[in-house]
Amino acid sequence: MADGEPTRIMMGANESTIKGYPHASISSRGAFDWTLQKIVRFNISGFKLLFLHVQVPDEDGQSLSSRCVLTTWTAYRRNRDKARGLHLLEYFVNRCHAIGISCEAWIKKGDPKEIICHEVKRVQPDFLVVGRRGLGPFQRVFVGTVSEFCSKHAECPVLTIKRPAYPRTLSMTDPPEFQAL
Amino acid sequence: MADGEPTRIMMGANESTIKGYPHASISSRGAFDWTLQKIVRFNISGFKLLFLHVQVPDEDGQSLSSRCVLTTWTAYRRNRDKARGLHLLEYFVNRCHAIGISCEAWIKKGDPKEIICHEVKRVQPDFLVVGRRGLGPFQRVFVGTVSEFCSKHAECPVLTIKRPAYPRTLSMTDPPEFQAL
Repeated sequence: MADGEPTRIMMGANESTIKGYPHASISSRGAFDWTLQKIVRFNISGFKLLFLHVQVPDEDGQSLSSRCVLTTWTAYRRNRDKARGLHLLEYFVNRCHAIGISCEAWIKKGDPKEIICHEVKRVQPDFLVVGRRGLGPFQRVFVGTVSEFCSKHAECPVLTIKRPAYPRTLSMTDPPEFQAL
Repeated sequence: MADGEPTRIMMGANESTIKGYPHASISSRGAFDWTLQKIVRFNISGFKLLFLHVQVPDEDGQSLSSRCVLTTWTAYRRNRDKARGLHLLEYFVNRCHAIGISCEAWIKKGDPKEIICHEVKRVQPDFLVVGRRGLGPFQRVFVGTVSEFCSKHAECPVLTIKRPAYPRTLSMTDPPEFQAL
């Protein structure tokens, strides 16, 4: 029924929108936990998880006249972004190691929805999991969602997980029952 | 990581659009095979499949003056629809029995996208699998797709499978390598 190769699941891992909180968003963590619980179940060797974190480049439009200051600032930002991205992915990788499930994780910069579809084309996972943010009707019309774009354009099956699918008790500090999955 | 209950996967099973061909559509069968191969894998006891076939009521607007003829015609159509629906679902149920995976199947009448979302609310599966038809941009704008509607409105995670995700060799007669999954 299945060949020897594990099913490769790509997951979008985005940062929390809470300012100054450098961790994975509730929707990313919820989608990850849901996938473990409902898809992987106890079949650890049957799956491999691929975590993609896309960082949106800053567009603060500062006009720094000194080339030296600009270079230092750019280098600082690059290091800061890299550290934040690694910290975010570490959460997922550590959880995978604890469970014993195979995984890979990497960071890209750009527009999340376009980068995700591009990486799907490049990496060719068996399917993509995206957590869906709870946008209101106004936001949806003008902003759209990454999940809607990926459902239409990603060249693989797409599993969209809305917020109510995973525990409402999930908080910034990860309650014990959530960590125990 | 998972509780004792199997993951309940609801699948939309629709009829082929080929006239006079009373079997499950290529997209339904492809989505079913993909789910077995990539999600269920060898973990037969970990999943239960729920097949929902939605029949669109005829709207041929015939004005029959005789109540008797109308009743006979309605009864004939009801029996014919029932027979076609059962025949269609039989394909999936037989495949499940051959593999040993637990399943349920039922028929409803109405607008597929609304009935599917209603049944999701009623049955509360862990997730819904929908095969996506290959509509062109013109059709998509004016008709939309069942999968797009369900992705937005179904009260559970939704896995959308487009045609290229499953074997291109799939034909009306199910070639041996497809049946052997």
